[in-house]
Amino acid sequence: MNLPDVPESAHQHVDLPGGLTLDCGVTLRRLVVAYRTYGALNAERSNAILICHALTGDQYVADKHPVTGRDGWWEMVVGPGKPIDTNRFFVICTNVLGGCMGSTGPRSPRDDTDSADPPRWGVDFPTVTIRDMVRAQKKLMDHMGIARLFAVIGGSMGGMQVLEWASTYPQAVFAAVPIACAAHHSAQNIAFNEVGRQAIFADPHWHGGRYWEHGEVPERGLAVARMVAHITYLSEQALTRKFGRRVRGAQALAPFGDMFEVESYLRHQGSSFVRRFDAASYLTITRATDYFDLAEEHGGTLAAAFARTRTRFCVISFSSDWLYPTSESRTIARALNAAAANVSFVEIASDKGHDAFLLDEPDFHRALAGFLRGCAEHAGLPP
Amino acid sequence: MNLPDVPESAHQHVDLPGGLTLDCGVTLRRLVVAYRTYGALNAERSNAILICHALTGDQYVADKHPVTGRDGWWEMVVGPGKPIDTNRFFVICTNVLGGCMGSTGPRSPRDDTDSADPPRWGVDFPTVTIRDMVRAQKKLMDHMGIARLFAVIGGSMGGMQVLEWASTYPQAVFAAVPIACAAHHSAQNIAFNEVGRQAIFADPHWHGGRYWEHGEVPERGLAVARMVAHITYLSEQALTRKFGRRVRGAQALAPFGDMFEVESYLRHQGSSFVRRFDAASYLTITRATDYFDLAEEHGGTLAAAFARTRTRFCVISFSSDWLYPTSESRTIARALNAAAANVSFVEIASDKGHDAFLLDEPDFHRALAGFLRGCAEHAGLPP
Repeated sequence: MNLPDVPESAHQHVDLPGGLTLDCGVTLRRLVVAYRTYGALNAERSNAILICHALTGDQYVADKHPVTGRDGWWEMVVGPGKPIDTNRFFVICTNVLGGCMGSTGPRSPRDDTDSADPPRWGVDFPTVTIRDMVRAQKKLMDHMGIARLFAVIGGSMGGMQVLEWASTYPQAVFAAVPIACAAHHSAQNIAFNEVGRQAIFADPHWHGGRYWEHGEVPERGLAVARMVAHITYLSEQALTRKFGRRVRGAQALAPFGDMFEVESYLRHQGSSFVRRFDAASYLTITRATDYFDLAEEHGGTLAAAFARTRTRFCVISFSSDWLYPTSESRTIARALNAAAANVSFVEIASDKGHDAFLLDEPDFHRALAGFLRGCAEHAGLPP
Repeated sequence: MNLPDVPESAHQHVDLPGGLTLDCGVTLRRLVVAYRTYGALNAERSNAILICHALTGDQYVADKHPVTGRDGWWEMVVGPGKPIDTNRFFVICTNVLGGCMGSTGPRSPRDDTDSADPPRWGVDFPTVTIRDMVRAQKKLMDHMGIARLFAVIGGSMGGMQVLEWASTYPQAVFAAVPIACAAHHSAQNIAFNEVGRQAIFADPHWHGGRYWEHGEVPERGLAVARMVAHITYLSEQALTRKFGRRVRGAQALAPFGDMFEVESYLRHQGSSFVRRFDAASYLTITRATDYFDLAEEHGGTLAAAFARTRTRFCVISFSSDWLYPTSESRTIARALNAAAANVSFVEIASDKGHDAFLLDEPDFHRALAGFLRGCAEHAGLPP
């Protein structure tokens, strides 16, 4: 297959001085953060909202994706007059550290060699944590002169970053909205991620992680990984509503064709994904989510992560999400209560599963818009 | 890796005359059914129980597995004094049609050629259905002179065979116990199976299905398939209890080692599986489960599958089974009620997930033993 034709440098980005020392002990000498912004920063620099993307998301929240040509992944939520209103707020989204859309990650040239033409990091890219991702974002905020974010908002892995932001930089976060996430990965979460990783390792084009050198991409393994993940994003109801047992064409009892529509859909999802995503990034980022354990970072007590916090929280879950079920959000809300934090908790009734945070869910959008409006009043932002 | 060292012919088997015409229209000229029996058939031939095995099970219910050397998969349930008491019942289990433990399947030599040394079927083995599997079992029963089975019992895919037996041969089944199963595959069931199949296709040792000719086995793909399936067999609670987030050794933040115990366990499960299971059989059998739709076979009405049945049913589910949830068993029980069948329905409280039917669940074992005892009285079996 063809490799993506959008060079890394084509993404809007900044080369941040000083590099970044990671939780694993390695120091990245070169730290590039790619990002997109929407709306305008006000004179007081008080209206900035950082959106944190999910596992396979990117910074193209509300404009066309340069590789796929598709609309931004959160156009329904971010824009003029939308729940995150770009007429009022300055919205920033960065490609996460370890990603493959312009930020430093496995596709970047190594910075630990004096070669004029260094090879890519590939699988030698150091292990990163959710906290490392947040540190890189904080460096960009410092670079932009934004001392305090009005809000940090994100779903799924984005929600983990929200929790980490509120915990690591409490003074820099006025409001926080962790959506459809958890404060640590469950055994089942880890197990599904591991299946995806093993599928990538099993691909003959993986070449022990040196696939770039061979001009190949472990596309089949990556597609299988995406297929597994995609199933976990949908509720049984959503899958059934979309496909049920509809049979494609008249191929009934044909051995290995696309007999059921769901199979054909999953294959399509898997194969379109490999055009825009890098296998080593997938490994790096899934690892980061598996390592994430906010309580563990604070002596085993989740409430300790939020001690003396003044951030206002709105924790949101979806009733049919079985990947990060409501019980995980309740655990977060309880810990925030135990830390005497200002927290509201909303479970949105939905049968769309984990994906609901990306879909047309009016109750969710109303809850999000309402919370931001209330916080803006408290923050004294002009209407 | 080495191919299994137990030749197909080493399994106890019978070469049944007349072959078998399949739902797909193909006629297998040669039909071999491999099986095991436990206990003794009484003079009236009225005490036979057929056990139907699950997707990756086999006929070694209660004796050592010839490839792995492990105990039989249902030793807890089948044996002298056990819930299925071999002092009282004559127990039969056949390797399913399409399997890889001696019954006709992808490993068998083709029967549609005049060659003296025909190649294996491999992926050219015709598509089989659950009903075809049951037809093959019926042929063995006829061969054994057993006109009516005292009971047909099975969990998971075995439960599908139980339903098919009761529907296709109602006169031949006195009692039926479908356990932890469904009358058709859900979109999610199909999707998980499809991930496994795609992982096999993606393996370089797959060779377009001609792996036998290359002396290779698509072991990595098959292992990934097993990993996915294994996750669906366990409840989140069972996975967490077994592993939680326990870290192996001191490899924290090591990039691609076996960091979490769950990963190491899944890899072990995957790799031990490939020693005993054939990839083409895996494809054939998962397809059969995906095609299964008992209502569809009867004009779209499940109750019609059981019209005028005189079989006594005990439908059993487990509360934490999310692969074949209790709601699917309720659907079966409701259809049986609508057919005015004699049916009892038991949901066993368990946090072990789908695998519970294979594990130490005293309530389940008591329910099964009690139902069989009651049926034996009705059937007039000597105590």
